[in-house]
Amino acid sequence: MPHCHTLVHAALILTQDPQRRILENASLAIEQGRVAAVGPRDEILAAWEAERELDLGNMLVLPGLVNAHTHAAMTLLRGLADDMPLMDWLKRRIFPVEQRLTPEIVRLGSLMGYAEMLRTGTTACVDMYLFEEAVFQAAHTAGLRCLGGEAVFAFPSAACAGPSEALAATRALAEMYAGHERLRVAVNPHSVYTTTPEILRDCRALAAECSLPLHIHLSETREETAICLKAHNKRPVALCRDLGLLDLPCTLAHTVDVEPDELDLLAARGAVIAHNPSSNMKLASGVAPAPAMLARGLAVGLGTDGPASNNQLNMFSEMARAALLHKLAGGDPTLLPAASVLDMATLGGAAAMHDPRLGSLAAGQAADCIALDLAAPNLQPLYNAASQVVYAATGMEVRMTMVAGEILYQDGRYSRFDYEALCREMSAVRRFVRRAAGLPEKAPASPDPARA
Amino acid sequence: MPHCHTLVHAALILTQDPQRRILENASLAIEQGRVAAVGPRDEILAAWEAERELDLGNMLVLPGLVNAHTHAAMTLLRGLADDMPLMDWLKRRIFPVEQRLTPEIVRLGSLMGYAEMLRTGTTACVDMYLFEEAVFQAAHTAGLRCLGGEAVFAFPSAACAGPSEALAATRALAEMYAGHERLRVAVNPHSVYTTTPEILRDCRALAAECSLPLHIHLSETREETAICLKAHNKRPVALCRDLGLLDLPCTLAHTVDVEPDELDLLAARGAVIAHNPSSNMKLASGVAPAPAMLARGLAVGLGTDGPASNNQLNMFSEMARAALLHKLAGGDPTLLPAASVLDMATLGGAAAMHDPRLGSLAAGQAADCIALDLAAPNLQPLYNAASQVVYAATGMEVRMTMVAGEILYQDGRYSRFDYEALCREMSAVRRFVRRAAGLPEKAPASPDPARA
Repeated sequence: MPHCHTLVHAALILTQDPQRRILENASLAIEQGRVAAVGPRDEILAAWEAERELDLGNMLVLPGLVNAHTHAAMTLLRGLADDMPLMDWLKRRIFPVEQRLTPEIVRLGSLMGYAEMLRTGTTACVDMYLFEEAVFQAAHTAGLRCLGGEAVFAFPSAACAGPSEALAATRALAEMYAGHERLRVAVNPHSVYTTTPEILRDCRALAAECSLPLHIHLSETREETAICLKAHNKRPVALCRDLGLLDLPCTLAHTVDVEPDELDLLAARGAVIAHNPSSNMKLASGVAPAPAMLARGLAVGLGTDGPASNNQLNMFSEMARAALLHKLAGGDPTLLPAASVLDMATLGGAAAMHDPRLGSLAAGQAADCIALDLAAPNLQPLYNAASQVVYAATGMEVRMTMVAGEILYQDGRYSRFDYEALCREMSAVRRFVRRAAGLPEKAPASPDPARA
Repeated sequence: MPHCHTLVHAALILTQDPQRRILENASLAIEQGRVAAVGPRDEILAAWEAERELDLGNMLVLPGLVNAHTHAAMTLLRGLADDMPLMDWLKRRIFPVEQRLTPEIVRLGSLMGYAEMLRTGTTACVDMYLFEEAVFQAAHTAGLRCLGGEAVFAFPSAACAGPSEALAATRALAEMYAGHERLRVAVNPHSVYTTTPEILRDCRALAAECSLPLHIHLSETREETAICLKAHNKRPVALCRDLGLLDLPCTLAHTVDVEPDELDLLAARGAVIAHNPSSNMKLASGVAPAPAMLARGLAVGLGTDGPASNNQLNMFSEMARAALLHKLAGGDPTLLPAASVLDMATLGGAAAMHDPRLGSLAAGQAADCIALDLAAPNLQPLYNAASQVVYAATGMEVRMTMVAGEILYQDGRYSRFDYEALCREMSAVRRFVRRAAGLPEKAPASPDPARA
C-alpha cells in the first residue's frame, strides 16, 4: 500500500481540476508537499497509508486562493487615509510615511498582512514593495508563497538610492532565494510613469538573464495613459511591447484603461492580468474589462492591491466584488458567473504567480488548500458550492489554511509565529506611522484621527 | 448612587451620537433596555451601581446595524440561482418555489437569516415577505427588531388569495403585535408594477387608519418605470405621490431609476430611502444616486435585499460595497466617505425603521449594540475607527450582539435558540426547496447543481 504523510477528509472538496469536480465525503492524500491523490474518502482510505489524518468534518475544502497583486506591507497604512483624491492621498499621506520606512517596520506590516491572508484563505501572493527582503522574511515566517521583488522607480525610495540599486536588490534577492520552494523573485518596475524606457530596458535585461517574471502596474488610469502618450507618444501597452517587456512572462496589474486591440495583443503574448476591483473602485480608477479579457482567453487573476486602497487583503471580498461589479458595469447579470470568478481567484492566480502547481487540487499539484466551515449561518443552505464561496462567504469561515501540506493557520492559531506578540509590536508600528505622517501623538478617539 | 442592570466596558465606543464621539476605555450603563449613560469607564463606574458587568476588553462597541430592506426568509433560496437574467431568475427559479412555501419553511429560512444577521452585527431590519407572521415568529425567537408586514400583490401568493387577504393579514399582525417592543408592522405593497392604484389606495388607507408606516419597492429598474409609464402615464414616484402614499411615513426600497426632481419631491415629503447596492449590482439594476440623495438631506438606510440577490445578510459587506460603488460611479474617490456610510447603516436605518431610538448610543436610546474584536488581523493597526468598520471589517469580527440590553449572540452561541438544531432542520428545508424548484434529488456535487 503506498504511503503518504497526511490524509485530509472533508464533507466536500471543490477541486478546480479540469473537470471542475466537486467531491462529497472526500479525501486528499498529501506527500512531500504535493497532492498525491484526491477522491472519495473510502477509496483514498483503502488505497493510502498515512502518518496522520486530519478529519475536518462538515467543511468545504478548496485550493488556497491566490492574491495576484498586492503590497502586503501597506497593512501599516490601513485606514490612515481614505476617501481622498488620489494625488492628495499619495502626496500628503502615503509618500511621507513611505519615505521614512525601515526594513523592520516593513517586516512587521507584511507579517500582519500575511496573518490576515492566512486567516482568510490566501496561500500565495504576488507582491511589490520597498525593502522586499523584509517582506520575504515575513512571508518566510508566515509560510505562505510569495512572488515578489524590490519596486523599481526612477527616483530614490527609502530602500534604494535609485533604479540600479533596486535592480541590484532584486538580483541579490533572486540569488538568496534561488531554489526556494515558496519564495520566488520577479522584476518589479513600478510603472511606465514612475520609470523611464531605459530603466524598463534594464528591468527586461535582468529578467531575461535570470529567468524571472516581470510584474508591473500597467494602464491603471486614464491619467497614466495621458502621461505616457505625452512623454513617449505611445500608450502604455505599446511602450511595453516596443521595449520587449511583453516577450517575457508578465503579470500586469490593473489594466483598466485598455483598448480592444491592446487586449488582443496581450492575449497573443500570453500576458497575465491581475484585476483589482476594490482598489479600482475605491480610487475611482475605472472598470477593467475583465469579461472581455476572459473572452479573449487571457489569464486573469484577482488582486486586493495594498490595504491602503481596499482596505482588506481578503480574496473572498474581492471575488464577490468582482462578480457584482461586472454585472453592473456590463448591464448584464449573467456576466462573470461564480465559477468564472472562482477560476480567477485560483487558476488565474496561479498564472499570475507563473506557477502551474497552484490553483487546483489534483495529483501532482501543490498541497495548498483551505477549509471553510459549512456550519456558518451565511453558508446555509448549500445548493451550489461555487456560489457559496463567491457570493456568501466572508473569508472568516476559513478554519484551516495549508501550504505545501503544512498547516499554517487553524482555528485561531498560527503555527509558525506568535500572533499575540505581533499584535503588541503593532502598537509601536502605529506610533511610528503616525509620527512619520506628521500626525499628533494621540489616541484614535476623534472621528477621523488621520485628519486631526 | 443610581442603579442600572448592566455595565458594558470596552476599549472603544463609537457612539454615533450627534457629535459622533468615539470614546476610549469607555462604558455603557444600561437599564430597562435603554442606554442610561455612556462615558469614560472611570466616570461611569463612579456614578452607577450595576447588577452585572460585561468587560469586553479590546473590542470596539458600536450601535447595532440596521438592515433597511430585506427578505430574510429568502435565505431558503441562497445560491439556488445566480448569474441569470432577472426574468428567468424570477420565473424559473424563485416563483416556482415561492408558490409552494409553507409558514414553517418560511419560519426556518427566516431564523437562519436572523442567525446570520446577529452573527454579523445586525440588530434590526425592515422586512417584507409571504407568511410574515412566520417571519415574526422567527424574529421573536431570535430576538432582533423587525419592521415587517405581509407583501401585498394584485395576484395570489402562497400565503394569500389576493390583496384584501394580504391587507387583512397585515391588520391581524398589527393587532397581534400592538405595543410589542421589538416587532412592529408596516403596510407592504410589493411595488407599483405588481399592484394597482386601487390596491395602493387600500394600502394607504390601512396605514393611515392604524398609524403604520408604508414599505414598498420603488423605481428599482428602468423597466419598472417603463411599465408604470405605459399603464398610468406617470413615473412611479408621481404615481405614489398622486395616490397619497408619500404623505405617510414611507420606506422606499431601491429608488435606482429616479430623476433629480423626484429626489427633491421625496426629500420634501420626508421619505426614507433603503439603498441596496449589492442587489442592484448583482441584478444589474443600476446605481441609485445615493450621494445626490444625501446632498438633499434625504434619510438613506442601507439594505441587503434578500439573500437570493446578494447572497448575504451582512451589513458590513453592504457598507464597503456602498462606499466603493459610489466612488467608482461618480468618478470621485471622496464620495461617500466612511463616516457617511456608517451613518447610513445606523442612523439611516433607524429612519427606515421609523424608530428614532435606534442607530446611536446615547442616554435614552435603545441598548442595541455590537462588539468587534480589535485583535482581528484585518482590524490592525487602528487609525480611524469608522474606516475600520466600513472598509476593513467583514462582520465576522462581531463577538457580541445585544438588543434592548439582552445579549442575543456571543462568541458562537445564540442565547435564545438552539443553532445546531436549526442546522439539522435546514437539511429538510433544502430538500423541500429542491423539490419545489423541480430539481433532482441529488447532492451538491456538480459544479452547478441548481442547473443540473
